[in-house]
Amino acid sequence: MNSKSPPDTPLLDKVSVPADLRKLPEADLPQLASELRAEMIDAVSQTGGHLGAGLGVVELTVAIHYVFDTPADRLIWDVGHQAYPHKILTGRRDRIRTLRQEGGLSGFTKRDESEYDPFGAAHSSTSISAGLGMAVGRDLKGGRNNVISVIGDGAMSAGMAYEALNNAGALDARLIVILNDNDMSIAPPSGAMSAYLARLASGRTYQGFREFGKKLTSYLGKAADRAITRAVEHARGYVTGGTLFEEMGFFHIGPIDGHNLEHLIPVLKNVRDNAHGPVLIHVVTQKGKGYGPAEAADDKYHGVGKFDVITGAQAKAPANAPAYTKVFAESLIQEAREDDTIVAVTAAMPGGTGLDLFGEAFPKRTFDVGIAEQHAVTFAAGLATEGLKPFAAIYSTFLQRAYDQVVHDVAIQRLPVRFAIDRAGYVGADGATHAGSFDVGYLAMLPGFTVMAAADEAELRHMVRTAVEHGDGPIAFRYPRGNGVGVDMPERGTALAIGKGRIMREGTKVALLSLGTRLADCLTAAEELDAAGLSTTVADARFAKPLDSDMIARLAREHEVLITVEEGSVGGFGSHVLQFLAHEGLLDNGLKVRPLVLPDAFTDQAKPESMYTNAGLDSAGIVRAVFAALGTASRAARA
Amino acid sequence: MNSKSPPDTPLLDKVSVPADLRKLPEADLPQLASELRAEMIDAVSQTGGHLGAGLGVVELTVAIHYVFDTPADRLIWDVGHQAYPHKILTGRRDRIRTLRQEGGLSGFTKRDESEYDPFGAAHSSTSISAGLGMAVGRDLKGGRNNVISVIGDGAMSAGMAYEALNNAGALDARLIVILNDNDMSIAPPSGAMSAYLARLASGRTYQGFREFGKKLTSYLGKAADRAITRAVEHARGYVTGGTLFEEMGFFHIGPIDGHNLEHLIPVLKNVRDNAHGPVLIHVVTQKGKGYGPAEAADDKYHGVGKFDVITGAQAKAPANAPAYTKVFAESLIQEAREDDTIVAVTAAMPGGTGLDLFGEAFPKRTFDVGIAEQHAVTFAAGLATEGLKPFAAIYSTFLQRAYDQVVHDVAIQRLPVRFAIDRAGYVGADGATHAGSFDVGYLAMLPGFTVMAAADEAELRHMVRTAVEHGDGPIAFRYPRGNGVGVDMPERGTALAIGKGRIMREGTKVALLSLGTRLADCLTAAEELDAAGLSTTVADARFAKPLDSDMIARLAREHEVLITVEEGSVGGFGSHVLQFLAHEGLLDNGLKVRPLVLPDAFTDQAKPESMYTNAGLDSAGIVRAVFAALGTASRAARA
Repeated sequence: MNSKSPPDTPLLDKVSVPADLRKLPEADLPQLASELRAEMIDAVSQTGGHLGAGLGVVELTVAIHYVFDTPADRLIWDVGHQAYPHKILTGRRDRIRTLRQEGGLSGFTKRDESEYDPFGAAHSSTSISAGLGMAVGRDLKGGRNNVISVIGDGAMSAGMAYEALNNAGALDARLIVILNDNDMSIAPPSGAMSAYLARLASGRTYQGFREFGKKLTSYLGKAADRAITRAVEHARGYVTGGTLFEEMGFFHIGPIDGHNLEHLIPVLKNVRDNAHGPVLIHVVTQKGKGYGPAEAADDKYHGVGKFDVITGAQAKAPANAPAYTKVFAESLIQEAREDDTIVAVTAAMPGGTGLDLFGEAFPKRTFDVGIAEQHAVTFAAGLATEGLKPFAAIYSTFLQRAYDQVVHDVAIQRLPVRFAIDRAGYVGADGATHAGSFDVGYLAMLPGFTVMAAADEAELRHMVRTAVEHGDGPIAFRYPRGNGVGVDMPERGTALAIGKGRIMREGTKVALLSLGTRLADCLTAAEELDAAGLSTTVADARFAKPLDSDMIARLAREHEVLITVEEGSVGGFGSHVLQFLAHEGLLDNGLKVRPLVLPDAFTDQAKPESMYTNAGLDSAGIVRAVFAALGTASRAARA
Repeated sequence: MNSKSPPDTPLLDKVSVPADLRKLPEADLPQLASELRAEMIDAVSQTGGHLGAGLGVVELTVAIHYVFDTPADRLIWDVGHQAYPHKILTGRRDRIRTLRQEGGLSGFTKRDESEYDPFGAAHSSTSISAGLGMAVGRDLKGGRNNVISVIGDGAMSAGMAYEALNNAGALDARLIVILNDNDMSIAPPSGAMSAYLARLASGRTYQGFREFGKKLTSYLGKAADRAITRAVEHARGYVTGGTLFEEMGFFHIGPIDGHNLEHLIPVLKNVRDNAHGPVLIHVVTQKGKGYGPAEAADDKYHGVGKFDVITGAQAKAPANAPAYTKVFAESLIQEAREDDTIVAVTAAMPGGTGLDLFGEAFPKRTFDVGIAEQHAVTFAAGLATEGLKPFAAIYSTFLQRAYDQVVHDVAIQRLPVRFAIDRAGYVGADGATHAGSFDVGYLAMLPGFTVMAAADEAELRHMVRTAVEHGDGPIAFRYPRGNGVGVDMPERGTALAIGKGRIMREGTKVALLSLGTRLADCLTAAEELDAAGLSTTVADARFAKPLDSDMIARLAREHEVLITVEEGSVGGFGSHVLQFLAHEGLLDNGLKVRPLVLPDAFTDQAKPESMYTNAGLDSAGIVRAVFAALGTASRAARA
């Protein structure tokens, strides 16, 4: 895809680790930043990945490693998707074109990967908490190193960042927080904090006192000058003249231009040499900085596929079927046209969840609450108490952020909040931190919860409709990242019978009971098993809770082998099936039951197909499990 | 216990619901408040429960119901333990002496209980999110009612409150937040926000601008007066003169005296009649107000047993064995004397978790981060990266607040954070919202996690030591509310072999495999089973993860019936055992396996013994399960 040769990088070629960087004269740093930017653009053009965020912090990355003694000084990048320039400067340049690929560099920071990554990330807003822990740990050990947490303005909408600021201000530990304010996270930001930061960045608020003094002086005339200056100084202690961060106990510096190394470096040196408590440096940057196509794009090339460096044109993989996310959005829009009590809630992921489309159709019924999953869920619960039908569209992995709210505010009160759980199961290039492995487990445990999983895009449409119709307590439906399987789509969804599965094919010896999108592989496996003389039934459970007890009992009674298949961890669907079978005595007669689940390991990024194969959740793995249950090591051994 | 007759309450006797209250002349309200206070003190003296918080809001409760049209106007009490006066005024006075008892009133707000409780609570900091949902719902429906969220200053340290403020400020919905500032939550507060509120409450900051104008005037003399006034007005927009809440988009009123009805009522009326966006009313109250013994106590009688109204003397149930919480604290103190890398983290529960004792011994190694479980866990993760041994002591139900941090910051990075999970299982009077039902499920799902459960107080001591010694990834140990079983205590704990259980008694036909404190009932059940001719083995698994696969395989192979017993939901220990047995083929030969878990229902408050009986988790229930598995409906039927 790359239409030009790699960039010339004579200075960057001399820098393998930050110690090399620190040998350069300060005057060379703008040139180094320029080469670093070019190198990153070239690398991401080949791998795809997060581009805009990294472009925005090139100068900041250079400045931090120049001024601070990393890795002895701890540098924590919040979220970590802006850390590609950091990776290039910290001994990983030779692997930078393996980003997000199997066996390659992670798309985020990762402790295993480098001593320069003291804390791994991927979910947002953890860096101040982690940094405070490191700072306190240092003080307990009597160390002298610095701890620097770099956090974006979008990440500041999450409660955990506030919890950490609140605690840091009280502990008064020497911690440096750099607020990287680019006025957008993944999407344009929402929330009062974002508006506040914009006011700060404009200089109006922060510089207020000086301005005020000047204005007062000019208003009253030269004569009153000194008197007023003293009055202002004197009064300052009585006025909330400080910023919000100062109120929280931080010394606050900024805003400063995050692309100007002549501004950044003296400030960082000053803080390094003089800070004694928590300091917040407000740095203003531009996402996508220095690459025309990114600067011009609405999303600042937040996440891109491979692209042409000169034109910025992004490669798009041809899709044979619509993406699940889009099917969800279109189905919900369709339902919302018929039912004006349907509303939608996203936590800063309008594009990722498809709620951008819903928002275009129903702007007043769409709520982007910021990176704030806890609030999103309880806000939805509040909406439900008033008779609205809230759909909270949250990735499986991010819903973990709101688990207590799901339990305490939704499930215990049996409020009919609808959870649209995108990115359920493996997520490919985003790796372990973004995998949706645990949702069936952590939701189906909850009394009164209805939990569905879509086997294909048509099922997803039905499940959206089912959730609309379901008023009896909370209901969730999960669906994976990526495109559907290409089935015919119904004009509109039909509400499914709650707790009823469906038999896809009938056999007599082996039963494959699937939940979710592994169904296609079950059907392929069944053909292979049939061909091997093992007559195979395939069922789609549709519901992890309530279970289709009639269907499952029949599968258990009428087959010698029962395999459950799901893209989720132990504790989920298979565990509920086993619990049911055990208590019904359906295991007492020698049924060979094998629940296939995700491996008990966090799985690094790879192609999804490769991940399924390794997990034994592809058709070959399912066939293998059947033969193993029957005591035949392989098909050949049986023949 | 009560040493005097019920209080005279002539005015209160006329008030069954708020509509009655609203018929009273305003001049009668102080008297009513006084009667309400006396009635609550009398009731709680008989039931035990939360006293201090309710005493602090007697006048506020009267004022809100007097001014607002509840239940059409929605009133949400954050946490809900301060809602006893509210319950008395909203049709529940006749049951107020059943508080926290089986079949009685909940100790918190609860939707099922009354239309005056539009949102149930018990965990803190949810009220602004819920209220915002209700306010937005009202606006979508074209309603006109008010929504009032009452939240304590302690609850403001939780990130979710901040997320909600942030969103409310941006949405600009008409929502009334009453900040009930009593300068303490359960324990004295920690955090910068608390210090900030104290400054606000002192009037210094909030009144700053007026002060400033006055000072400037007096400084410069009368002549400049008008000019300065205008200058101040003019400049105001340029200065961060607003409070933090104003920065978040709220109109901010206060601080006002929350015990003075003549101040409260006009302000509430004004807000009711004139508010058009989010408003925050800062009310200063005194926890324990109006009851001498409570006012004098350090904890302001936050939670009390039955007590004598006149003397304030609290009944203490005689304990035959030490409380688990105390055993944990003492064991950790013992270990910390030997290992100075041990540190402890609590989220605003120093007393409840026993870390108050640890803090007395090691003040610099104890961190109370406020009601901020998310931050607590990632802060602990940061400490762990620096080689410290952090013990995060968090109730099972509250750890749900930090689930994503447990997954993303601790488990994925295999950081050796130690989780001391108190209140695991049923919690008696606190009911469903505080039950620790899900922790084994949501933790044992996670790769690399070690999960233990203590069968008795000596085991707990061993597990504390085990956690100290264990450096290979995260480790959790759970233990219940209440007192131990009275076993001999070892001088000091001994590290357990990871993933190894213990056989308590040997039999041949039935195996009872217990995790945690149901072990005592398993042993009792075994005696009864033996007596009935069913030779019974009892094992204590100790570990839900990793499982003792050798021991479990042996139990499965050598017995006809295997019963797992745990005080946790499906998806936990029993599910892991079944998963293991299924994959090892140990279910293929007709083993009668029955996993006993908590019922699939949220369980209201009751005596723990009654809860175990209802759940079938007492010795009789275990015996019943064995007979049922053997196809004998009762012991008699077998004989």
